[in-house]
Amino acid sequence: MQTSETKMTAPPSQERRIVNVPELFPDLIAKHAKAGRFVDIAEKDSPWVPFGENAAIKHLLFDTRHNIYSNILWLKGPGVVGTHKHRGYVVMMCLEGSAHYLEYNWLATPGSFIYETPGEAHTLVSDHPDGCKLFGWMQGPNEFYDSDGNFVMTADVWWFMDHYETYCKENGLPTNPELYL
Amino acid sequence: MQTSETKMTAPPSQERRIVNVPELFPDLIAKHAKAGRFVDIAEKDSPWVPFGENAAIKHLLFDTRHNIYSNILWLKGPGVVGTHKHRGYVVMMCLEGSAHYLEYNWLATPGSFIYETPGEAHTLVSDHPDGCKLFGWMQGPNEFYDSDGNFVMTADVWWFMDHYETYCKENGLPTNPELYL
Amino acid sequence: MQTSETKMTAPPSQERRIVNVPELFPDLIAKHAKAGRFVDIAEKDSPWVPFGENAAIKHLLFDTRHNIYSNILWLKGPGVVGTHKHRGYVVMMCLEGSAHYLEYNWLATPGSFIYETPGEAHTLVSDHPDGCKLFGWMQGPNEFYDSDGNFVMTADVWWFMDHYETYCKENGLPTNPELYL
Amino acid sequence: MQTSETKMTAPPSQERRIVNVPELFPDLIAKHAKAGRFVDIAEKDSPWVPFGENAAIKHLLFDTRHNIYSNILWLKGPGVVGTHKHRGYVVMMCLEGSAHYLEYNWLATPGSFIYETPGEAHTLVSDHPDGCKLFGWMQGPNEFYDSDGNFVMTADVWWFMDHYETYCKENGLPTNPELYL
Repeated sequence: MQTSETKMTAPPSQERRIVNVPELFPDLIAKHAKAGRFVDIAEKDSPWVPFGENAAIKHLLFDTRHNIYSNILWLKGPGVVGTHKHRGYVVMMCLEGSAHYLEYNWLATPGSFIYETPGEAHTLVSDHPDGCKLFGWMQGPNEFYDSDGNFVMTADVWWFMDHYETYCKENGLPTNPELYL
Repeated sequence: MQTSETKMTAPPSQERRIVNVPELFPDLIAKHAKAGRFVDIAEKDSPWVPFGENAAIKHLLFDTRHNIYSNILWLKGPGVVGTHKHRGYVVMMCLEGSAHYLEYNWLATPGSFIYETPGEAHTLVSDHPDGCKLFGWMQGPNEFYDSDGNFVMTADVWWFMDHYETYCKENGLPTNPELYL
Repeated sequence: MQTSETKMTAPPSQERRIVNVPELFPDLIAKHAKAGRFVDIAEKDSPWVPFGENAAIKHLLFDTRHNIYSNILWLKGPGVVGTHKHRGYVVMMCLEGSAHYLEYNWLATPGSFIYETPGEAHTLVSDHPDGCKLFGWMQGPNEFYDSDGNFVMTADVWWFMDHYETYCKENGLPTNPELYL
Repeated sequence: MQTSETKMTAPPSQERRIVNVPELFPDLIAKHAKAGRFVDIAEKDSPWVPFGENAAIKHLLFDTRHNIYSNILWLKGPGVVGTHKHRGYVVMMCLEGSAHYLEYNWLATPGSFIYETPGEAHTLVSDHPDGCKLFGWMQGPNEFYDSDGNFVMTADVWWFMDHYETYCKENGLPTNPELYL
């Protein structure tokens, strides 16, 4: 087997400059590629939208084509997000405080990585006095149930978008087009 | 239009207990669902693998079926990841320090969200004295080029897996099965 | 801009032989890559599982990590798949006969391509005397409703897997591991 | 465990009418959902674009956000698509004729299902006097190599889009917006 590639073990450049990368279709990319997005933590880019009495969500992205949504969930003190069932996958990174699921035996602290697969149901709890901040990248619906196991509602990209837009409307804020892929 | 669902504006439960959620196929899920994953920030779960002189990567997940890989990139001081072209998408959350791309005019600080789409090429720089820590969830290959625009190599799930496994082997560490979806 | 690549307008080889393609990580791919799959139309690979009185489904793939499932839906004569709402995406190719959705104004015949996005609800009908065969590649749950708009059930990867496995069990057939990604 | 859902074994309705499905966010879906797509096999919807001397491609969808592209590949007689390496996944359904990969021991005929995962390289051959028609749904780049194993080029969503648009331009045909997700 021939090997025309070299196995890189370090970044290929320490030069602080843009290199012109060859590209066969620069015009098509310029015309059709959806530009990358940046959302700052500051309120002006995306406000903390209240979620119940003692929690808030900062919405970061809505991809309606693939039912993907991203945000930071902030529990401001000890609290619970009741049992819910996933029909898609969940990627989370703990940013502050701590959290765990009642169903598992780990404790997420800053830097901890959580991945959930379709079919699982679990109950999120923070016992930290300051609660937690969790970055999430999620695909597909989550189904919520009440304490008796009765279905309450489905939260997917539309619920999160409504949560964001309703708050913006009620507070006279413009919606940020950067959040809509 | 009938509405059997209720629009939830707050978590449906504050009770700190597991609710039995109805599920038609519990046996199939028990048998076939891939369990969720948890990777702690601690070295024992996933070590900081050196990446050049002044950087390291903590690997979090390898999904070979979809060419997805997740990790934390740590630049330990001011530094550069040379111009690279994406053939998939990139999700990043800044955890510490700051970073930006030479091609764009924003500065990512802790809590900032970055999303990149296929077709874009850019050059990552940190000017922060402590560098940066960036959580990443990435799909598809990234192509690296040298300062003259010559193709050097492609980094996708296989490169990241090799980076992790080679380090483990050289240091007598077991690989963590939680990292392999 | 340098261009090291050549713009190909035709297949790069007409030689009927395997070319050794350079690969940096052949050992990792050999160890970790999930092999590709092949499912023949023949009953031995995947049987036609009855779906109501006059329809059948040939299951082709179950990807539980991403809630993806693939199959051929066969309506054996004029018929209806009642109104259902998608929470993921749907890719379909008409193989035989014809079909349409009551909500749209096109008619799918062999070779027609259909793509549906999350959030849509529609009602599939075939008026063709021989019904239709539709290849489908689907992600995420579909929710079914009765004639009064009451929720009946959610069909996602677990429902399709159960449909397949139950039939195999009842008919003394082994399940085909090629169908499970 | 409570079961509020009923296990469906047949379509929930045989009535040929649209049922009003309850939806919490009909306005958001109307505003933000990308409509589904339909591409007929007829030339007017998407022409057969020549691909070398004896092959053609009918393009069906370009999803630049996820580097996904879909089409029908038509080899008009016995032929080869040279060895190529996948960095994403491939879904294929054989519509007409027959085809196989030199690397595997199956023969795809109408109704056969093929799935390929990232990391694999293979060589597509049709020995059928009429060649084959293959429907494909593909994610991520494919890398082509010449007979000596030298890299020739990468084909991903941009290459397929260029193949389509160049032909339309050269033949005075309008591009079909239905093909662009």
